[in-house]
Amino acid sequence: MRQAGRSLPEYRRVRAGIGMLDACRRPDLVAEITLQPVRRYGVDAAILYSDIVVPLAAAGVDVDIVPGTGPVPAEPFRSRADLDRIPALDAGQVHFVTEAVRLLVAELGDVPLIGFAGAPFTLASYLVEGGPSRDLLRTKALMHGDPDLWRDLLARLAQISGEFLRAQVAAGARVVQLFDSWAGALSRADYVASVRPASARALAAVRELDPEVPRIHFGVGTGELLPAMAEAGAEVIGVDFRVSLRDAVARVPGRVVQGNLDPALLFAPWEVLSARVAAVLAEGAAAPAHVVNLGHGVPPAADPDVLARVVDLVHELPSPPPPPTS
Amino acid sequence: MRQAGRSLPEYRRVRAGIGMLDACRRPDLVAEITLQPVRRYGVDAAILYSDIVVPLAAAGVDVDIVPGTGPVPAEPFRSRADLDRIPALDAGQVHFVTEAVRLLVAELGDVPLIGFAGAPFTLASYLVEGGPSRDLLRTKALMHGDPDLWRDLLARLAQISGEFLRAQVAAGARVVQLFDSWAGALSRADYVASVRPASARALAAVRELDPEVPRIHFGVGTGELLPAMAEAGAEVIGVDFRVSLRDAVARVPGRVVQGNLDPALLFAPWEVLSARVAAVLAEGAAAPAHVVNLGHGVPPAADPDVLARVVDLVHELPSPPPPPTS
Repeated sequence: MRQAGRSLPEYRRVRAGIGMLDACRRPDLVAEITLQPVRRYGVDAAILYSDIVVPLAAAGVDVDIVPGTGPVPAEPFRSRADLDRIPALDAGQVHFVTEAVRLLVAELGDVPLIGFAGAPFTLASYLVEGGPSRDLLRTKALMHGDPDLWRDLLARLAQISGEFLRAQVAAGARVVQLFDSWAGALSRADYVASVRPASARALAAVRELDPEVPRIHFGVGTGELLPAMAEAGAEVIGVDFRVSLRDAVARVPGRVVQGNLDPALLFAPWEVLSARVAAVLAEGAAAPAHVVNLGHGVPPAADPDVLARVVDLVHELPSPPPPPTS
Repeated sequence: MRQAGRSLPEYRRVRAGIGMLDACRRPDLVAEITLQPVRRYGVDAAILYSDIVVPLAAAGVDVDIVPGTGPVPAEPFRSRADLDRIPALDAGQVHFVTEAVRLLVAELGDVPLIGFAGAPFTLASYLVEGGPSRDLLRTKALMHGDPDLWRDLLARLAQISGEFLRAQVAAGARVVQLFDSWAGALSRADYVASVRPASARALAAVRELDPEVPRIHFGVGTGELLPAMAEAGAEVIGVDFRVSLRDAVARVPGRVVQGNLDPALLFAPWEVLSARVAAVLAEGAAAPAHVVNLGHGVPPAADPDVLARVVDLVHELPSPPPPPTS
């Protein structure tokens, strides 16, 4: 469960007075925060505590996380000259993350660690817009208006995302997740032509290092894009809560799926929530495998006891039978 | 084109110093602002200048539009007692809108006027959340946690939406649009069980008054919901820009479609934009009819000259042939 920490008192305790990027740069804190949900819930995997801008900042891009706003670059990306401010990432520059991964692997034992990076398009959107944006008008204007510069920008970001994931795998992460927060704002035509090649490159970088490491690819609001996203190469396709898991499975035949419980159900009565958990499990049984998860991050106001009950229920429910082949 | 006004200097001029709700209550201003895009672009229909909270406020709900934020109720909706603060709407309470419609019908001649109302779910979300919200957690919590109260709330809002549309039709609007801004945040199961019945009721209210008036039903990010939305009864299904119009047409067989050009393309070079306009027209040809439109509102920064060129192009392009039936 991504962002499981935000709702935990033990998370708020260790983060008190420490900025997000600073926390992501302290191996002891990264390890502690990554372990907290595993300890509390007994989930079957841990996901690295990090942020999509961590590798950007490590590579030397001047970007910060503004509380209440999000990632904000010192200067927005506007022209070819701005490419000079986006250097390639060298694995040594994220030593604090690889150190955290090593601490975690030692601590986690059989529980696998999932590495994490933002996808090139989402990284580009923050750089071009100068911060979070609802409609991504500047990003799309650059994509349509200067396709060569757009391609070069995304190639640099794909190198950074890919190298960041490789560093985590080299240190012991057994799965990786490429997270494309904003891909859902794109038409399929734009996604396929102008975004997917860079995501595919970042994912391929992991495969070149270790073809045994499963790669998860997730975006928000990407029901329409699922078949196109699957062609970027990941073994596991994340599914948000807006699309039924049954439809999603049909759109990415043969792929493992992850998701797709609506996080808002964590605030529903237990009989509603538990019925939906069972329904999601039943729908996921049509895929070769289903990584049970929320369809988006954990809301900060979520009750940890409810999350614990959901995890227990998933562990207790019998695996649903695969659907009949017709 | 919804919100076409926002990008027009003549709109900003007449709105200077006048609050949104105040502007919506002045028949002369409503008529003038509604006419501005028709005059400038020569579009084939006008859409009433209004806001989704206009009928709520007219019915006596204490709600305002806060600039830069959006609709904010004086008190959020929390319990059954709050139903008392949502009275039924009587057509006489929106006399300023019916007067504006009469002015417009006289002025527009052969150009039809499209009436406008927000859908019950979207209205409910503002009341329950106490303002705009990204994740609608409180709204969904009420929907799941107290389905009886939720149903009663939506029934009241359906009466208000339906009566507001009927008043516009009675005054001369020849088409209506029911706008569900936030439906895209719902899973299909929740939409069908807890939201669609109220939208269907608002749409049915128009049909009962005049079965000849076509009803448009639009939501943002509703690609997954299109078949379910079509069953709410509208003759025309709006399609945002995230789903391909080809897929959308296949999901609502036999329905007229509206949309779906990405508003961000207004900032693209003309050769990119014009090619997409032609592609959208070709995809729409598979439907019984296609109301060419953007897939969302006009961005405030859009260049009116570009919009004029798009309208001219749509008028100049030959109607694409319907696709071969196979």
